[in-house]
Amino acid sequence: MTALNSADSIANPTIADVGENEALRRTVSRLNAGDYALVGSGDDAAVVATTDDRFVVTTDTMIEGHDFRLDWSSAFDLGWKAVATNVADVAAMGARPTALVVALAVPASTAVAWLEAFADGLSEACLALAPGASVVGGDLAAAEQIMIAVTAHGALEGREPVLRSGAQVGDIVAVAGTLGRAACGLALLQSGEATAISAYDDWVNVQRRPNPPIQAGIDAANAGATSMLDLSDGLAKDAHRVARASGVTIAIDRVQLSGFEAMLEEPAMRIGANAMDWIIGGGEDHSLLATFAPDALMPRAFKPIGRVIARAESEVLLDGSPLQESGWDSFVA
Amino acid sequence: MTALNSADSIANPTIADVGENEALRRTVSRLNAGDYALVGSGDDAAVVATTDDRFVVTTDTMIEGHDFRLDWSSAFDLGWKAVATNVADVAAMGARPTALVVALAVPASTAVAWLEAFADGLSEACLALAPGASVVGGDLAAAEQIMIAVTAHGALEGREPVLRSGAQVGDIVAVAGTLGRAACGLALLQSGEATAISAYDDWVNVQRRPNPPIQAGIDAANAGATSMLDLSDGLAKDAHRVARASGVTIAIDRVQLSGFEAMLEEPAMRIGANAMDWIIGGGEDHSLLATFAPDALMPRAFKPIGRVIARAESEVLLDGSPLQESGWDSFVA
Repeated sequence: MTALNSADSIANPTIADVGENEALRRTVSRLNAGDYALVGSGDDAAVVATTDDRFVVTTDTMIEGHDFRLDWSSAFDLGWKAVATNVADVAAMGARPTALVVALAVPASTAVAWLEAFADGLSEACLALAPGASVVGGDLAAAEQIMIAVTAHGALEGREPVLRSGAQVGDIVAVAGTLGRAACGLALLQSGEATAISAYDDWVNVQRRPNPPIQAGIDAANAGATSMLDLSDGLAKDAHRVARASGVTIAIDRVQLSGFEAMLEEPAMRIGANAMDWIIGGGEDHSLLATFAPDALMPRAFKPIGRVIARAESEVLLDGSPLQESGWDSFVA
Repeated sequence: MTALNSADSIANPTIADVGENEALRRTVSRLNAGDYALVGSGDDAAVVATTDDRFVVTTDTMIEGHDFRLDWSSAFDLGWKAVATNVADVAAMGARPTALVVALAVPASTAVAWLEAFADGLSEACLALAPGASVVGGDLAAAEQIMIAVTAHGALEGREPVLRSGAQVGDIVAVAGTLGRAACGLALLQSGEATAISAYDDWVNVQRRPNPPIQAGIDAANAGATSMLDLSDGLAKDAHRVARASGVTIAIDRVQLSGFEAMLEEPAMRIGANAMDWIIGGGEDHSLLATFAPDALMPRAFKPIGRVIARAESEVLLDGSPLQESGWDSFVA
């Protein structure tokens, strides 16, 4: 080892320098305390409080080179996004996020400071998006490629879970949260145009640190939403999922998407893209798609975008024309 | 694509050949149904029944090249082991395993048949080790290296969780399950001696498909175990954990390990190894280490190996001599 490497190791130690236990200790010490952890990290398992005799559970994975790039996302961003994508799935069931466990695989050469920033991202996202929720356990493993697998839990607080399969003919179709912003941010990053990336950093940051409307999911369940879904793969693909599960057709009015479109026109023009492509095909905003009976008191966070009609030739229509299913398949380039 | 490749693709299609959705459908269809899944796979999240207003949760990761080798373990073995290691942690809290979620990352070139065999391993392990439990959800992601992250849940059924920190001076220290067999199996595989591997395949199979004593964990909690731990990293390292968390010393009697030793002497002699090294340092049998008050009715699955004494100079003693902490650190070769 050269003198320079020694100095680097002291200033910015890696997991291999300090060992797994110490790296874990430093990481875990940065996690926020939650309201639901009866037994937290440090034993074989955690114990989590529920609010009734059920809990909601979902898991989602982020893989380096497939779901993120280290030159586009910081460790903090990745911790935040890992929480955001998972609590969005919990909220899409009408549940309140309570507890997460995080399995993280990283190379031994990873700086402990990277782990600490990742933990800060986890904590800040819990505090901002899902107050009361916390990381209650995890696992740190060695790998050549960074992999983040988060499992999130939620409490139904006596509500019935809101499934994809309950949409009824006549229901209003509505969205809480933004559409197309994360896709716009990704397109900006892919463009490599530094000035455009900096000019539209609010859009880029939705890609890096999404803000799913968690409370809106709980409010929707309380308002009697008949179906609900996390828009993780884009409006077209996810609307098809609701239509298929419910045996109906989702008819979207393009004019009702114009508010979403207006927010994207400037960056779209800047890099020669089509804002509507992002709105229809872009996932990762982790907004919520829900359906409500016409007489339901729809929560204010939801904006109507169409109606549920009897099953037509197509599962999803845009202004009466079939909208193709398209979106993200992890295994197709 | 050559004619040969086309024929291969038809006979043994990969995920890239059939697409993510179809690969997932075929995999999920092989999972067993459990007693606790109120809402299973196919929505944003699953809903799992609890038996009181708490649940137990733990997560563990297996990484190709670090935790397993594809030439030593089949897809079925890996599915089995992923369940076994996690339900052992649930049982070590005194809880009954109820539900698992599985995050799997694999290359797009992975055969669908591999996924199906992995799912069969998950199901068979649930049925054999934790009847009533099932895989209720998961995520399939693309990666260059296989990563398996399982999160397991358990029901306490009104019992208090058994922590590492409750061992009391005077308690009996006992083990349920085998010791050193998985380490013996690993050493046999590492020896590369095909005839030895085949002669002692029962030992090798404990490494490939461990059989943690799940019911013994529940029985121990019912019998009032004061502390309990999954022996995932070996007796020395895990006994240190109990001693440290409880503020006591664990004094192990070597003569009480002789039953475990006898089972390993033949394969140890065959490859020139020391059976006691496997018993002291070998993890991965996923047996349970527990402590019981002297007047407790210890479940039959547990065999005494020592006593809890007041904190001595060393946290763990073997026949009165300090037993060094040693074991598995993922980040040290």
